[in-house]
Amino acid sequence: MGIYDIIVIGGGPAGVTAAVYARRKLLKTLLISKNIGGQVLQTDNIENYTGYEGRSGAGLADIFERQLEAVSAEVASDVAVEVTRDGAVFMVRCEDGEYRGRAVIATGGSSAKRLGVPGEEAYLGKGVCVCATCDAPMTRKKDVAVIGGGNAALQSAELLAKFANKVYLVHRRGALRADAILVERLRKVQNVEFMLGKEVLEIKGSAKVEAIRVRDGASGKEMDVPVQKVFVEIGMEVKLDYIKGLADMNEYGQVIVDRLQRTSCRGLFAAGDITDLPYRQAIIASGQGAVAALAAYDYILESS
Amino acid sequence: MGIYDIIVIGGGPAGVTAAVYARRKLLKTLLISKNIGGQVLQTDNIENYTGYEGRSGAGLADIFERQLEAVSAEVASDVAVEVTRDGAVFMVRCEDGEYRGRAVIATGGSSAKRLGVPGEEAYLGKGVCVCATCDAPMTRKKDVAVIGGGNAALQSAELLAKFANKVYLVHRRGALRADAILVERLRKVQNVEFMLGKEVLEIKGSAKVEAIRVRDGASGKEMDVPVQKVFVEIGMEVKLDYIKGLADMNEYGQVIVDRLQRTSCRGLFAAGDITDLPYRQAIIASGQGAVAALAAYDYILESS
Repeated sequence: MGIYDIIVIGGGPAGVTAAVYARRKLLKTLLISKNIGGQVLQTDNIENYTGYEGRSGAGLADIFERQLEAVSAEVASDVAVEVTRDGAVFMVRCEDGEYRGRAVIATGGSSAKRLGVPGEEAYLGKGVCVCATCDAPMTRKKDVAVIGGGNAALQSAELLAKFANKVYLVHRRGALRADAILVERLRKVQNVEFMLGKEVLEIKGSAKVEAIRVRDGASGKEMDVPVQKVFVEIGMEVKLDYIKGLADMNEYGQVIVDRLQRTSCRGLFAAGDITDLPYRQAIIASGQGAVAALAAYDYILESS
Repeated sequence: MGIYDIIVIGGGPAGVTAAVYARRKLLKTLLISKNIGGQVLQTDNIENYTGYEGRSGAGLADIFERQLEAVSAEVASDVAVEVTRDGAVFMVRCEDGEYRGRAVIATGGSSAKRLGVPGEEAYLGKGVCVCATCDAPMTRKKDVAVIGGGNAALQSAELLAKFANKVYLVHRRGALRADAILVERLRKVQNVEFMLGKEVLEIKGSAKVEAIRVRDGASGKEMDVPVQKVFVEIGMEVKLDYIKGLADMNEYGQVIVDRLQRTSCRGLFAAGDITDLPYRQAIIASGQGAVAALAAYDYILESS
């Protein structure tokens, strides 16, 4: 088994851009990911990735795939389990294979958060959805609930309103975190009802979802809201078990990076939503991926 | 005259992305720039802006323009001369107008460097070119010289080789700074000749350019190379007179930023090639522009 110059873990904007930049330096590069696009694939309405005006996440992912092909990037459809370091060489143990590299760029490991209420797991795929893009066409003439108050929740609600009979936007806080432009736009959509200050207690039903039980934060009163679909859009969770112990993390489990995307472990870089940088956007992740690859290139030159 | 929430100076990837993000927060936003695209407009072969596969810089700038229009961004075709701060309000004095804003995002001020040799200014537009994209079609059947050793120089040489009879790539150092992938590709182009370790002393001619005089670094010998066009591609110069004294700069005159793109002056942010971050790429500038806008938004919320 040969040694790669750079092993990139994760196929979202950060990982793809890192791999493209590494390949343009003619580095022996491996990208490890089960898909190309990452969370971009779960977005239907990308309006703020400057330079891309196709809107659909799948369309952006298609461009990423072609750009990887254009630089002949090697991709392993695998999942990283553990990264260890032996001297100057990293070993990346995956579910299906093992790979060695001189530098590693970690970008994968962020995923959709769960509510953690009764019925959520039981009704997953039976009315509980985590991907509005995938499931929106299945909500025709149905009443649906979107749980969350950020951009993802509002974008999902906007998309679903085109298909569903009625969309409830349910958020436990009284104020929304989302961009004002999205809030203003969604306020004008007739079949969207804002339910703010309402905590979801349970997802109920028989064979399929039939309602969500919510509690009003102010009055403490509980009520059932009849819906047939529930979209959980409450943000991202970071799972970085594969580099645990190797690099310093913050209190939220995000890997700490400096502005050159270096972690506390020499030769290990990180980019995208898994890092401790506060803003999580595809265009930011791409920029960080490019920086990580160029910093990793400099690291390889210095240490060889 | 009203007060803008955010004034963005510069219309390259950093400025455009900052304006798009600011507008999506429904902030009153002004973008000050004589053009949209910035240095992107001078590039003919963009292969590493992930998400954009159109290749031409003008094409990417067109998308930027449409994305600015989509968020109804206000653009002033002007040049910033001096930014001052009076309490919580910035005053941006331009050549044609004056604008007040609660936060400023500086992105403009980097431009192509000059050689500083005799004949360079005199023959500008008479054989000396600074934009290969613009002037490549005018080099048909001519012999041309590209001065420089970075990515921009090699990309220009590659483009020019498609039009010109012969392309000399002249670099004062023995090694090229450019991506290995570009060097390898250019080595295969028949009508490109590498002249490394050669310093340009003068650009000579009568009515138009007829030759460059170069000195070999090793032997000290001088010689004339007959060419009809000279493309100066030796990198970027940063001119930040408009924020001089307001924010800390490094020894290269670049403005120092932290990883949230904050300068040493509260409320003044910076992004793109004018900052002290080491890597200068359009996709990195876009990411920084997004971070700057989101950080400026947080700053405005905190200080109001």
